[in-house]
Amino acid sequence: MTKILIAYPMEEKFRRIVEEILPKDIIIYYEDMDKKSLEDVEIVLVRSWRIARDIIHKLPKLKYIQYLFAGVDRIKTEEIPKGVVLLSNSGANARGVAEHALSLLLTAAKKITWRDREMRIGNFPQTSESLLLTNKIAVILGTGNIGREIAKMLRCLSVKVIGVNKSGRNPDNLFHEIYTIDKLKKVLAIADFCIIALPLTPEMENLIDEEKLSVMKKNAILVNVGRGKIINERALYNHLRKNKSFIAALDVWWKYPKQGEKFQQNCDFASLDNVIMSPHCAGVYENYEIDLLKHALENIKLILEGKTPKNVVRY
Amino acid sequence: MTKILIAYPMEEKFRRIVEEILPKDIIIYYEDMDKKSLEDVEIVLVRSWRIARDIIHKLPKLKYIQYLFAGVDRIKTEEIPKGVVLLSNSGANARGVAEHALSLLLTAAKKITWRDREMRIGNFPQTSESLLLTNKIAVILGTGNIGREIAKMLRCLSVKVIGVNKSGRNPDNLFHEIYTIDKLKKVLAIADFCIIALPLTPEMENLIDEEKLSVMKKNAILVNVGRGKIINERALYNHLRKNKSFIAALDVWWKYPKQGEKFQQNCDFASLDNVIMSPHCAGVYENYEIDLLKHALENIKLILEGKTPKNVVRY
Repeated sequence: MTKILIAYPMEEKFRRIVEEILPKDIIIYYEDMDKKSLEDVEIVLVRSWRIARDIIHKLPKLKYIQYLFAGVDRIKTEEIPKGVVLLSNSGANARGVAEHALSLLLTAAKKITWRDREMRIGNFPQTSESLLLTNKIAVILGTGNIGREIAKMLRCLSVKVIGVNKSGRNPDNLFHEIYTIDKLKKVLAIADFCIIALPLTPEMENLIDEEKLSVMKKNAILVNVGRGKIINERALYNHLRKNKSFIAALDVWWKYPKQGEKFQQNCDFASLDNVIMSPHCAGVYENYEIDLLKHALENIKLILEGKTPKNVVRY
Repeated sequence: MTKILIAYPMEEKFRRIVEEILPKDIIIYYEDMDKKSLEDVEIVLVRSWRIARDIIHKLPKLKYIQYLFAGVDRIKTEEIPKGVVLLSNSGANARGVAEHALSLLLTAAKKITWRDREMRIGNFPQTSESLLLTNKIAVILGTGNIGREIAKMLRCLSVKVIGVNKSGRNPDNLFHEIYTIDKLKKVLAIADFCIIALPLTPEMENLIDEEKLSVMKKNAILVNVGRGKIINERALYNHLRKNKSFIAALDVWWKYPKQGEKFQQNCDFASLDNVIMSPHCAGVYENYEIDLLKHALENIKLILEGKTPKNVVRY
């Protein structure tokens, strides 16, 4: 029987979910590791790579690492033993992330954070700067689970959605138009909104740079729920300072505060009115941990049933 | 020929729209009033009631007053000569108002204004308090143009929409459920979100009072794009102070600042984190004046064609 190790401490309420989806007698919990033989563990469910990196080398029969999160850019794949398959949890919280992206976009379109700030100091900025979404053009970078959910929502709000990806394929014909990433500059020039929903790979670093920003509309909105480094930090900061009508709504950042540290970037975004700041919480909604766990367990179940698991990152 | 008076100063670009929709030779502009006979004016287009109230008494043949805005609560109907029909401009900017309501709701659901404020002072509130919209229940008060647009959008986002109105009729079967207003307390008890899209009439004043608020979920969201006085100000303030998870996102207010005045309410909403403040700008988006004017002119055109105009407020 294929043994599965849960490589992080797990509360009772989550254990109950595990045992609903998988047979109880093949699970080894983190807390029981010392008491059980790890020799025949073939699948490991991982939450923190810091904890997991040591454990995986104690598992001689390990075949699969199932990660609890979608973005695997924090996992050092060179530390994974040869022949072990890494599975991401892509799609688990895509709906929540997409809702957050939509929320950032709408907050920006109607200037809610700025208006709220002004009213708290007694001003009443009843100006007609709100953008109407109807008939606008949104460019969505990335047509994975998140990009597709965003596209569905925006179509419903009468926004034209243009997808940009590597393959040029249009999944489920969901996008009104689709372009390969080498055409990015061309499509950015006509975008009212640009939403980044890409994972971070080395080639995507600094994809949105000074040149790309320069072709965008003066009152465009840039939303990032992918990874901070896909945008060049300095280029965006300079662009925002020069173009007060351009808005960046960012959930992901270049630097993250360690425990006890204050949040700070290299550029002083907090001083700008045309930035909307959110603390990498797009996927962190009520009960999101249940969504993540269930989705990961369903993938493990595929392996147990002899089927091919989803979200293979590396063989 | 039916003469039409435009009872407010009008810029050239708007005059061009007037002359596209209506025959040029039947229009008298505000600026030309002294030079032309007002004796046979039958229709007047009104923007500011302050300006219009004197003018209408100089028009002996007046039959119709077409107002440029949807909400007629600021017009003193007792000042209108007997037999003159008042037409509102209901529906003209309904889509924009509905988009603003959705924006306020999403900003509240994902706690964007609060998170943004916190990050600007160096905090990083990556907490899981964001609500997922999917499968939530929204109660929409008012099933007119705005309420229906909101319902369409929320349905698309997988929110269940319950409409509340006087008649209990379900327009276009757009709402999953519909209730009459005497059932309001019952439906508020199950609402995750409540959106007010009602006009202000005397019977609707203080509709949302302490009793109604007390039955709502502790972490519900209340959005108001109708009129401030539909909510009891003190009751809402006290409720927000006691229930930190409850959020009110308000575009409409109890007191409006006059020219040069600071914005201030009787209660200090600006000191609360669980309020989102927007300056009565739901209908004030890019080029909204064009939408308003075109919609009003199309209604006047119906009269000229001998048809029944829409939005009759008072005979």
